Amino acid sequence: MAKMSNRQVLLSARPNGIPQAEHFNIVETPIPELADREFLVRNEFLSVEPAMRGWVNAVGNYSTPVGIGDVMRAFAAGTIVASRHPGYAEGDKVMGMLGWQQFAVSDGVSITRKVAESDLPLSLSLGVLGLNGATAYFGLLDLGAPRPGDTVVVSTAAGAVGSAVGQIAKLMGCRTVGIAGGPTKTRLCLDEFAYDEAIDYKGDGLVEKLTAVCPRGVDVYFDNTAGAISDAVYAKLAIGARVVVCGTASVSSWDPPPLGPRVERHLLVKRARMSGLLVFDYAHRLDEAIGRLAGWVRDGKLQYREDIEDGIERCPDAIAGLYRGENLGKKLIRIHSG
Amino acid sequence: MAKMSNRQVLLSARPNGIPQAEHFNIVETPIPELADREFLVRNEFLSVEPAMRGWVNAVGNYSTPVGIGDVMRAFAAGTIVASRHPGYAEGDKVMGMLGWQQFAVSDGVSITRKVAESDLPLSLSLGVLGLNGATAYFGLLDLGAPRPGDTVVVSTAAGAVGSAVGQIAKLMGCRTVGIAGGPTKTRLCLDEFAYDEAIDYKGDGLVEKLTAVCPRGVDVYFDNTAGAISDAVYAKLAIGARVVVCGTASVSSWDPPPLGPRVERHLLVKRARMSGLLVFDYAHRLDEAIGRLAGWVRDGKLQYREDIEDGIERCPDAIAGLYRGENLGKKLIRIHSG
Repeated sequence: MAKMSNRQVLLSARPNGIPQAEHFNIVETPIPELADREFLVRNEFLSVEPAMRGWVNAVGNYSTPVGIGDVMRAFAAGTIVASRHPGYAEGDKVMGMLGWQQFAVSDGVSITRKVAESDLPLSLSLGVLGLNGATAYFGLLDLGAPRPGDTVVVSTAAGAVGSAVGQIAKLMGCRTVGIAGGPTKTRLCLDEFAYDEAIDYKGDGLVEKLTAVCPRGVDVYFDNTAGAISDAVYAKLAIGARVVVCGTASVSSWDPPPLGPRVERHLLVKRARMSGLLVFDYAHRLDEAIGRLAGWVRDGKLQYREDIEDGIERCPDAIAGLYRGENLGKKLIRIHSG
Repeated sequence: MAKMSNRQVLLSARPNGIPQAEHFNIVETPIPELADREFLVRNEFLSVEPAMRGWVNAVGNYSTPVGIGDVMRAFAAGTIVASRHPGYAEGDKVMGMLGWQQFAVSDGVSITRKVAESDLPLSLSLGVLGLNGATAYFGLLDLGAPRPGDTVVVSTAAGAVGSAVGQIAKLMGCRTVGIAGGPTKTRLCLDEFAYDEAIDYKGDGLVEKLTAVCPRGVDVYFDNTAGAISDAVYAKLAIGARVVVCGTASVSSWDPPPLGPRVERHLLVKRARMSGLLVFDYAHRLDEAIGRLAGWVRDGKLQYREDIEDGIERCPDAIAGLYRGENLGKKLIRIHSG
């Protein structure tokens, strides 16, 4: 194989809160020779997701923070272009924690799965058929425990996770209410993601709007935001409600934790449950989720949106852009068109 | 039956927050004639409990607030002294929502159960063998889901509910840490309620104290307080922790809800669960709980404390006294010595 160089996005400084473009730099490095039981992946799509904020912050999180000077931790999907590993062959499509870089050397540990759905775009393995879809699937079905007829409220309802949550809830026979920011996203909720109701959280009277569309209260709240949106939804929980805490997009820093109205009384009076979700805990059931999600995609029952930008130089500002709410759908960076 | 009069404690004004003596008055009324399918209970013990704060407040709760001028809603235990009901005989001991009054006319609907443990004091039916014990039992075992070796932290650890939680957790093979206010109560935790560790929340450094005694974090937190104590415990949750929200004793008013550090990040990072508990939801399983609790009491494995005052005139200030933390053990008012 000809000697090629590898463009990589490194974490250059540790942010407190949402990482900005200045916390990253792009370098060009040589691709190391493959050792035995290693293979080389040419990344085609790099993922951008809210959880990256947590991965780079120093404060208590579920994973070791990305080191300063390290390649930014990221899911990516690509094709194996060289292999000295018996389990991975040239031409295999894979998705895993391959980093924000053009090429990744792997021994298999960083691979989440081989992408077997060759009839569907590879990019889906980073969105609706990847961790986003699995997050929606396990969060809603396992922790949210929806029953037919339940009212399911979703925050960031038009996003990569939220849009799948709303549609899966609908497939389960629930009434779905999406909360999103601005008319474009609420329109998307109704037109593409089959929500029964959509609420624009920008503007006053969120509690009143929720009251109007959830006359019997909220049975399941799938939360990607925390903050003021959640405070409004907590006030409308039905008896026995389940809150799935999946993300905290509205909170710019957790060091120290911001103040908000205490939730204990809502939980007590409504005998409600709040559960934190980390999709990695469901690694052993990933095939189940991807199999069902892919079936729904093929049947046209699960719509998705992608927001694809081209070129690795779009990476450094990408997380901040996500938190600015600029994207419509799963945000991806495409590199290597071939 | 000779015409007797009935002393009753009425709610005379609606408090916002903790009800004080001035929110009640005591009146003397005639006992009505029994209709068909009614019976008359002579109360011996009146219960005082933190939940009464919720019963008299107008703001969102699980039950209709007690009306102004109504007999104060309360559990009581007594003996049937006259009956025109085929299911209840003179001499039967009963416990139920009989109110803060000397005599209660009932058609059976207000009865929680007949007290069959004639070998044990009747007063226990209002505490460790009543709703307090059942709250501890179902809250810990159902929502807390303790496993052997788990670290279980209990707030108001020496109280009527907390003391039972700690001992049941111990019976389940857990390590128990009690949080209580002041040296007398922490002493009680260690000497009578078999806690492995006891922490006095009065004084600085609660997080540091918790860190010292919970080196592997908190697996189950049975919470009766909310507020600053809970904030400290949330910071120490272990992965997969279960928080049982049973009471909010430290919060003087929920209208509006006080501010506190937001909990979502703790729940997310630790994949923890917070569940609100209302023991009334377990009415269909009450016999199971009372049966096991009574067995543990008889075997000397479940210790309890009672704090009994004499005379119905002690009622009006009793709830406020509870929130002042004056009592040691289950607070009861004894009336009718005979």
